[in-house]
Amino acid sequence: MPSPPTDCLFLKACRSEPVPRPPVWMMRQAGRYLPEYRAVRARADFLTLCRTPDLAMEVTLQPVDLLGVDAAVIFSDILVVLEAIGQTVLFEEKTGPRITNPVQHEEDLTSLKTSGIPESLPYVYQSIRQVSAALSPRGIPVIGFAGAPFTLAAYAIEGKTSRDFHRTRQFMHARPGIFSRLLDLLADAVTEHLLAQIAAGAAAVQIFESWGGILGSEEYARRILPGLQKIVSRLRDHAPVILYVNGSPQHLGSMKASGATVLSVDWRLPLNEVRRIIGPGVALQGNLDPTALYAPPAQIAHITRAMLSAHPAPGHIANLGHGILPDIPVEHARAFIDTVRNPRPV
Amino acid sequence: MPSPPTDCLFLKACRSEPVPRPPVWMMRQAGRYLPEYRAVRARADFLTLCRTPDLAMEVTLQPVDLLGVDAAVIFSDILVVLEAIGQTVLFEEKTGPRITNPVQHEEDLTSLKTSGIPESLPYVYQSIRQVSAALSPRGIPVIGFAGAPFTLAAYAIEGKTSRDFHRTRQFMHARPGIFSRLLDLLADAVTEHLLAQIAAGAAAVQIFESWGGILGSEEYARRILPGLQKIVSRLRDHAPVILYVNGSPQHLGSMKASGATVLSVDWRLPLNEVRRIIGPGVALQGNLDPTALYAPPAQIAHITRAMLSAHPAPGHIANLGHGILPDIPVEHARAFIDTVRNPRPV
Repeated sequence: MPSPPTDCLFLKACRSEPVPRPPVWMMRQAGRYLPEYRAVRARADFLTLCRTPDLAMEVTLQPVDLLGVDAAVIFSDILVVLEAIGQTVLFEEKTGPRITNPVQHEEDLTSLKTSGIPESLPYVYQSIRQVSAALSPRGIPVIGFAGAPFTLAAYAIEGKTSRDFHRTRQFMHARPGIFSRLLDLLADAVTEHLLAQIAAGAAAVQIFESWGGILGSEEYARRILPGLQKIVSRLRDHAPVILYVNGSPQHLGSMKASGATVLSVDWRLPLNEVRRIIGPGVALQGNLDPTALYAPPAQIAHITRAMLSAHPAPGHIANLGHGILPDIPVEHARAFIDTVRNPRPV
Repeated sequence: MPSPPTDCLFLKACRSEPVPRPPVWMMRQAGRYLPEYRAVRARADFLTLCRTPDLAMEVTLQPVDLLGVDAAVIFSDILVVLEAIGQTVLFEEKTGPRITNPVQHEEDLTSLKTSGIPESLPYVYQSIRQVSAALSPRGIPVIGFAGAPFTLAAYAIEGKTSRDFHRTRQFMHARPGIFSRLLDLLADAVTEHLLAQIAAGAAAVQIFESWGGILGSEEYARRILPGLQKIVSRLRDHAPVILYVNGSPQHLGSMKASGATVLSVDWRLPLNEVRRIIGPGVALQGNLDPTALYAPPAQIAHITRAMLSAHPAPGHIANLGHGILPDIPVEHARAFIDTVRNPRPV
């Protein structure tokens, strides 16, 4: 197995080392906005794609080859961990994922699998091995990922996505003991899954706390942060850990305290303000509003340059603040990528 | 018409004057969690209730009589302004409001009404007159309200609620000129509607920026704040103005800069942290997580006392951080209210 590149732009930026320009990639860069992705999806549904390493590799490589991003992110889903612990996850086209056996009672918890998680997800690691083998000679790293325990618990309890996650928060307030056991179980599963991805060749791993923003800062620091710290402490010696938290200016203190190598932030606060709040010692990833890619390309170049100038120091990985949307024109995504690669066009 | 009380707990707290204890009310306190409300709704649908002053008065008074809150909030909806400017709003039981003619093109904008808004909403003012007449002798104020321009624009464009308001943000980025005209039109309509509510007897008015948290701090300060400042400047000499912004730690600077008398904040940050960020000179309202009311009553009393102790100084109105949820047991709401009224039970 070829080793992942260690001195590429992306990994240098993770370590806050000087780089000639920030590396750039996009969350959900292997996705529907690419006609080439849609062509593969016309032949295979989402789960088949996840579970077939040759197909997962094909779509993982597309944005690298077509757009010139500086890192690949393995094609998978944050919810595969819920499948691995025994939930049934349906990936439906229009409505998003749905879990047919959500956690509602203590018994639902005791029926979940608590060990041997990686044995259920061999296809993820095989996909990473193949992508890593293909990209290592080109000096491009592959990023593995998983959902954070709270975000996974929110799906596990609600059974679907939600705006306010009322049922999850009700569960947390009304049955704090069971909620805490669910978080612990998920933290162990996530750790095992991420360690296996690193062993398969992932040069870095990202933890998606997509829905943590619904919680208050004290609640998060008290109930959620300890689990994150445990996960990060077990991963950090093996690969850089990126922690993504969406819609959460209130959690910047917890994000820093997690021990993550890189904090991936959204567009709620400009990068200079985030840096002012968290101080030095951790790299930042982000943070263009994905809906800003609906603007004309000249405007995209303008706001991308503004984002870059908000963090001119080392320790910045350019990205969006959330996944790229399926109806963004490819030329608009290209305007973002190209502006980072050539911030001062001649 | 009796004048609204000027030295009640609520209005003193709005002015940050010393009070023996903080006043308390709850957003959506006239709502489904009350069996007495459900009994009225069994006889009349939501819109009929809004448009029939006797019924609106009945449900507006219920939480005052049943729970002992310190202010009434008129039974109405933030979307009546969209109706008044010419959108068709359907209030559906399960799915929430739906607008059948959303703003999609420039022509949709030119067909909207830009003046004479209050002439379309006489029932709101009549309801306020009746509630004010009933409550003034008891020294209890009635609060009027409206949606903030961005939140109304989000409904006007999406046609329904949304988690991410992608269409609204797409509109903002792709057609900023039309978006800005829509905001201006809504700011004028909101101002007229709130002035008419004050004239009818509202002792204070609250502006609901329910969905502003989806925007970044700079975007909000540049595109949204100037309209808010214009609205507040036209209202502030007539009555205290409460600005509610949901999920928006990044907007605290803009909220303060709006000139509002009171900032109503959610549970994302504790009140002492909010106070540290915004400094003195403006009262705070909030901020219990409404899902914390699913906890057992003893625990509700505990977290309510913790909330109160986070802001011991004058200038605090106790409230939830968002509307009370329809399936909260009344005894749990009562535990919150009673704890504020008697924070140190013997």
